[in-house]
Amino acid sequence: MEYRILNVQSVKEFLLSIDVIRDFFETDDLISEEIGDGNVNFVYIVKSKENPQKALIVKQAVPYLRCAGEEFPLSKERMTFEIRALESYGKIVPDYVPKLYFSDEEMSVVVMEYLSDHIIMRKGLIESRVYNDFSEHISDFLAHSLFYTSSLYLQSDQKRLLMDRFNQNRELCKLTEDFVFTFAYMDHESNFIDKNCELEAKELFERMDFRKNLLELKYLFMTKSDALLHGDLHTGSIMLNEKESFVIDPEFAFFGPFGFDIGALVANLFNSYISHTVMSSDEKYREWILQTVLEIYEKFETKFLNLWDGVDSSALLTKGFIDDEALSEYKREFMDSIFKESVGFCGAKMARRVFGIAGVEEIRGIKDDTKRKEATLKALEVGLNLIKEYKNIKTPTQLVSFVKDMS
Amino acid sequence: MEYRILNVQSVKEFLLSIDVIRDFFETDDLISEEIGDGNVNFVYIVKSKENPQKALIVKQAVPYLRCAGEEFPLSKERMTFEIRALESYGKIVPDYVPKLYFSDEEMSVVVMEYLSDHIIMRKGLIESRVYNDFSEHISDFLAHSLFYTSSLYLQSDQKRLLMDRFNQNRELCKLTEDFVFTFAYMDHESNFIDKNCELEAKELFERMDFRKNLLELKYLFMTKSDALLHGDLHTGSIMLNEKESFVIDPEFAFFGPFGFDIGALVANLFNSYISHTVMSSDEKYREWILQTVLEIYEKFETKFLNLWDGVDSSALLTKGFIDDEALSEYKREFMDSIFKESVGFCGAKMARRVFGIAGVEEIRGIKDDTKRKEATLKALEVGLNLIKEYKNIKTPTQLVSFVKDMS
Repeated sequence: MEYRILNVQSVKEFLLSIDVIRDFFETDDLISEEIGDGNVNFVYIVKSKENPQKALIVKQAVPYLRCAGEEFPLSKERMTFEIRALESYGKIVPDYVPKLYFSDEEMSVVVMEYLSDHIIMRKGLIESRVYNDFSEHISDFLAHSLFYTSSLYLQSDQKRLLMDRFNQNRELCKLTEDFVFTFAYMDHESNFIDKNCELEAKELFERMDFRKNLLELKYLFMTKSDALLHGDLHTGSIMLNEKESFVIDPEFAFFGPFGFDIGALVANLFNSYISHTVMSSDEKYREWILQTVLEIYEKFETKFLNLWDGVDSSALLTKGFIDDEALSEYKREFMDSIFKESVGFCGAKMARRVFGIAGVEEIRGIKDDTKRKEATLKALEVGLNLIKEYKNIKTPTQLVSFVKDMS
Repeated sequence: MEYRILNVQSVKEFLLSIDVIRDFFETDDLISEEIGDGNVNFVYIVKSKENPQKALIVKQAVPYLRCAGEEFPLSKERMTFEIRALESYGKIVPDYVPKLYFSDEEMSVVVMEYLSDHIIMRKGLIESRVYNDFSEHISDFLAHSLFYTSSLYLQSDQKRLLMDRFNQNRELCKLTEDFVFTFAYMDHESNFIDKNCELEAKELFERMDFRKNLLELKYLFMTKSDALLHGDLHTGSIMLNEKESFVIDPEFAFFGPFGFDIGALVANLFNSYISHTVMSSDEKYREWILQTVLEIYEKFETKFLNLWDGVDSSALLTKGFIDDEALSEYKREFMDSIFKESVGFCGAKMARRVFGIAGVEEIRGIKDDTKRKEATLKALEVGLNLIKEYKNIKTPTQLVSFVKDMS
């Protein structure tokens, strides 16, 4: 389908031209609305006028960054990788991604399930909502999506063929390389420096003690192709309620290191924790956040190892190659290495939210100057120290204590 | 150009149909000859009848393994990656690869310089020939080919675009995964067990102490995309004389770990060393081999670091990100890690030559049963112990002593 930019009117005709979508709505009488909070893409909700519960989301990429305008070009092909990731996730973890109704790579468009009953997790955390099943859901998502796209499960050529569908997500990988691993730690025009913290920002730009480790982590990000990653798994990429959790927006998807998605998620939980230490006296809620981090790690490891134990032949393993004892030692070290990486990536993902281009609402949105400064500097300090110490923190319990003690 | 299999006759007409080649020969009167020693492909020498110094090599892949016949299918697309590697090497290290005159991916054919004055290095080593400039040449090849195709030099999108030209070399990557890292250590139909060593082979298949490390190395091979590798850099892939060295046959080329090519080369030098400890009393020659290994490592590191010091902006590094002290510590650890990997890969490449499908002439070709057995078991023992100890051997000097003491 030849590329054309949809608008709030033409999106309806577009949907009605697709058989499977017309069957879904069972009517030609649709109403459409643009959702304003997409920073990067155009997003519409389209509903049946007669029966507004019948609704779908239409997301289209344009050849520039939507929130910045046409002078900030960004190739619309990023949607190709979101489509492909949603297709892969739809097979591997269908319970944790919105259902895909239609996609077209040339049109850079996806049509998917409308999650009417779910909110963005970042907002839920700011409102101190508790999601007791979240660790169960997201550990499922992480264990399955990482394991089933890795050399621990796939055969050699299957893995390389799947990788080939994501290899060319160059532009968004470079955004991460620049904004997560580089510019946020330098005096760079893309940064956003809170006036309150100018002195501390300057100190950061001169501080060298974490940079060697940060280069190591950046190098891992660029060269280690363990598995298909979401690539941007922060709490704004999760929609949930008490019973269900959905991962959305996988446009940064690529084959990268196992620990990156986990680290990103935990970083955002820690930033929320720090925000709550400053903004709220509700100790129970803060403890729930830390408990959730612990559970994510524990459940992820158990589930990942369970999946692994069920496979005796893959790109990595040939049946009969190694005995159980040596293999289980190998697996133990493998999981330790995923954990270690994730701690480093967590640090980078926390720290980059401080002065880097993309702040987070739970910190940058604090209205009180003193409290905002306090949260900002705590997040920075914890993030940088996690980068510095990522090889010395051995267990999730140590990690949580480390963060608690520093916050 | 549509694919058709050439033969010793049609190869001449084929060459004369290419302008640049006809210009090279300056005549239509050619003689052609098939060279029998290509295991995998068809190789012809084509000469001007009038002036036989004017000669070219034509190499064509067929959709099966040439030495095994049509019942061993192997996709002819392997030549695509050889062509692409020769093109890349032609730009980066033109002094160390044969000059490319013509190539066609659809025809799976390359036409290149005929190295009339050079022999396969493996044969030279068996004949105890000394190549005093070899360490200079090959360290140049390694430092330049690895550095200039890595994230230490290229920008992020350049690296990913170049990788994309090699990502689909699935079939040959899998051959390495299977035959270098797996089957050679198991009771597998592809193995070649010298009757002399049946007992020892059985012992090997039950031995477990090196396998965890071998899995680590295999996993690195499969997932770590540092730089463009030759992928099969043994002494049979090098043609040389006292003054010049050429790397040939890069059909296994892909993006893999820095240490793999170096390890492969050193493994083949060590196997030659072991063969000489058994076959010859010429201690001076053996010492020359070990000295060559030391020089390769030392010169490679110096050259690689020199190239790196000349670059202050790349996918990895942004100018101003890190100070000189922290950067030089990072580089030190980076080089140590390349060395460590190379030792592990060296061990795997040595050991797989023992009972695995592809033996080497300097060992499997020894006629005397006792001596052949001695060399075989030494190579196996050294290889396995290098795999076991690869993380504990810290310097090239320690590596050479380790091998010398065990041989």
